[in-house]
Amino acid sequence: MRDRPSGSTGRTGHYVVPATAATVHWGYFSRSLKPVLSVESGDFVTIETLTHHAYDDHARMIEGDPGAESVFLWSKDAKNVERRGAGPMNASIHGRGAGEGFGVHICTGPVFVRDAQPGDVLEVRIVDVQPRGCRNPAFRGRAFGSNAAAWWGFHYNDLLTEPKPREVITIYEIDAAGARNWARAVYNYRWVPQTDPFGVVHRIIDYPGVPVDRALIEEKHGILKDLRIPVRPNFGVIALAPKEAELVDSVPPGYFGGNIDDWRIGKGAVMYYPVAVSGALFSVGDPHASQGDSELCGTAIECSLTGTFQLVLHKRDHLPGTPLADLDYPLLETQDESVVHGFSFANYLVELGDNAQTEIFAKSSLDRAMRDAFRKMRHFLMATKGLSEDEAISLMSVAVDFGVT
Amino acid sequence: MRDRPSGSTGRTGHYVVPATAATVHWGYFSRSLKPVLSVESGDFVTIETLTHHAYDDHARMIEGDPGAESVFLWSKDAKNVERRGAGPMNASIHGRGAGEGFGVHICTGPVFVRDAQPGDVLEVRIVDVQPRGCRNPAFRGRAFGSNAAAWWGFHYNDLLTEPKPREVITIYEIDAAGARNWARAVYNYRWVPQTDPFGVVHRIIDYPGVPVDRALIEEKHGILKDLRIPVRPNFGVIALAPKEAELVDSVPPGYFGGNIDDWRIGKGAVMYYPVAVSGALFSVGDPHASQGDSELCGTAIECSLTGTFQLVLHKRDHLPGTPLADLDYPLLETQDESVVHGFSFANYLVELGDNAQTEIFAKSSLDRAMRDAFRKMRHFLMATKGLSEDEAISLMSVAVDFGVT
Repeated sequence: MRDRPSGSTGRTGHYVVPATAATVHWGYFSRSLKPVLSVESGDFVTIETLTHHAYDDHARMIEGDPGAESVFLWSKDAKNVERRGAGPMNASIHGRGAGEGFGVHICTGPVFVRDAQPGDVLEVRIVDVQPRGCRNPAFRGRAFGSNAAAWWGFHYNDLLTEPKPREVITIYEIDAAGARNWARAVYNYRWVPQTDPFGVVHRIIDYPGVPVDRALIEEKHGILKDLRIPVRPNFGVIALAPKEAELVDSVPPGYFGGNIDDWRIGKGAVMYYPVAVSGALFSVGDPHASQGDSELCGTAIECSLTGTFQLVLHKRDHLPGTPLADLDYPLLETQDESVVHGFSFANYLVELGDNAQTEIFAKSSLDRAMRDAFRKMRHFLMATKGLSEDEAISLMSVAVDFGVT
Repeated sequence: MRDRPSGSTGRTGHYVVPATAATVHWGYFSRSLKPVLSVESGDFVTIETLTHHAYDDHARMIEGDPGAESVFLWSKDAKNVERRGAGPMNASIHGRGAGEGFGVHICTGPVFVRDAQPGDVLEVRIVDVQPRGCRNPAFRGRAFGSNAAAWWGFHYNDLLTEPKPREVITIYEIDAAGARNWARAVYNYRWVPQTDPFGVVHRIIDYPGVPVDRALIEEKHGILKDLRIPVRPNFGVIALAPKEAELVDSVPPGYFGGNIDDWRIGKGAVMYYPVAVSGALFSVGDPHASQGDSELCGTAIECSLTGTFQLVLHKRDHLPGTPLADLDYPLLETQDESVVHGFSFANYLVELGDNAQTEIFAKSSLDRAMRDAFRKMRHFLMATKGLSEDEAISLMSVAVDFGVT
């Protein structure tokens, strides 16, 4: 299950990476992580991913599931995954916990791609995506997700009704067998201060994986009645390791991919990423059952998924003259369209200097992201379609849709 | 063709409003315009609209077409439609021409809806949309449009190639009979300074309908070869008259509708607008053959269209308890979705005070528009679906797409 046998026959391999405390990194990317698997170009990998919101409903998303229990285990005496985020281990900034929650996504990996070197492009084909069925016998056949309307959401300081502000968790159910392509709401509850096993009080959702004490919350059922939410499973985070820093917060996306949060990055999609470090170091996380463009309240239906990926390496020497030449951003191809993603900064790790990882949160805007999307789409059309700048600009205006993810 | 006969039998009327110098207003809305037609709720109106970019290719978009010739006629001695924009008639600000081009869209109307009063809602059903066939025998069976990559486009100060900056017009052809659902580029040319018949030099595209001297420009053919642009005809501007000002620039959209530029506002779409003045005063213009979300370079494929609309009045007294209660923004319903449009200001004419019509251009941003879209969608879900605020916010995050138009 780990490395391909030496003396490979050249046949395509298919590996499985389960999600356990030993195979995940939580809230950050790093060029220094030890790979959990090494593959060759063309190999398939089935990767389990866990949502970092699973503790919003322990009975439905953790209980009875050895992988999830392993990752989320946190008692007075033990915390299986200590670091959560790219912050200091001693939580000297806010005191939230190890890593400070500067980055929140549970990522499975990294997978080392043999022979991948900086300047190459890694093509990631998403062959299959399945929801992770609940292992608790009480909820057999179903899968669950959580939507947190949280303090980082667009709505948070702009609420109409009391109490203001507030964070609200909504639990959704989907059909684990995939017979129904829609989700329905089960109940919601208001976040109230939670004391973690190490004694830190979390008044807001400021650290991932904090156990929720069910005695403190009040479930409100009968919500969003008769409403069916279309299911479109996707991975919010797919990343190669960035080269610029030792620990990189998993929240701001960048040239390396990361937290792009586009529902189009699901089954059948193909992503292309520039390789920045030896072996590429591919990781996946932040699984979603469904999200709208914008993920307005801060999260999607956060729901553990298992994906099957084929990893295909394009060596730097073979890129000139192809559509992948000079690719310095993640490129998405779906059955219907090509998609580039605009960020506030194309490479904030370089552009924002020493304090890049702090500054990025202050300097982000939709207007900046639109600018970046325009430049990338122009590059894409000129590079891959051989258009002049004037042709590319006209085409963008009359036939390219820009959206908010 | 004008008013319904008195002593109406109560049967539904169907009227036609051709586009001529007498039935259009160019670049502005006004509560004081004399209606070109008066209808009752439920009546159908077929309305011809002309693109203000038709002079970009006179032979293909004006020549031989009596309506277009009437509207665009501008010689040393005569200018059939004098006012173009909401600016001063003596052009005392920039000297561009009457109205200063503060507003650019040729609008046909207004249509007076009998019994419509402030507080009512006008439902506009777009029953049919047809491209306006070229009347020049040289181009029989075809229709044409112009895409101007202009100084107000998002790309203008961010060009890669020389000369910088530049404005580029691309002429597109579509099939007037509708047998093909795609457009193709015919040629492009760079805008060069044009002297209008009154002697004003237009170095950039700063005034609508300036005759283009074909001897000064250079057609570049063979562009965007083999590329098919999906045709999705829509009206960039549909407006009721705003009550706040005598003359309102046609460019910034508002609660009254106006220049929303959403390709979804085409055949089969239904729009709802709050009525602000007696008779509603409904106008249509800015016809597009196709545009992408964002209309990045400043324009769509600007192409004259004829639309058939059914106008249905919803009286204020019957709104409480219905989804249209308290509607104070334009609401779009298509076959698949409900759409609200976020603007930088929900009602800039009121919010920005005395200089609203100037300030709006300085204070617009995507971030502000996203805020407005969020608030409107929340209102829509709470008002029409009976959801609590928490339900609405969760639903928006997991199942509503936000885009850029």
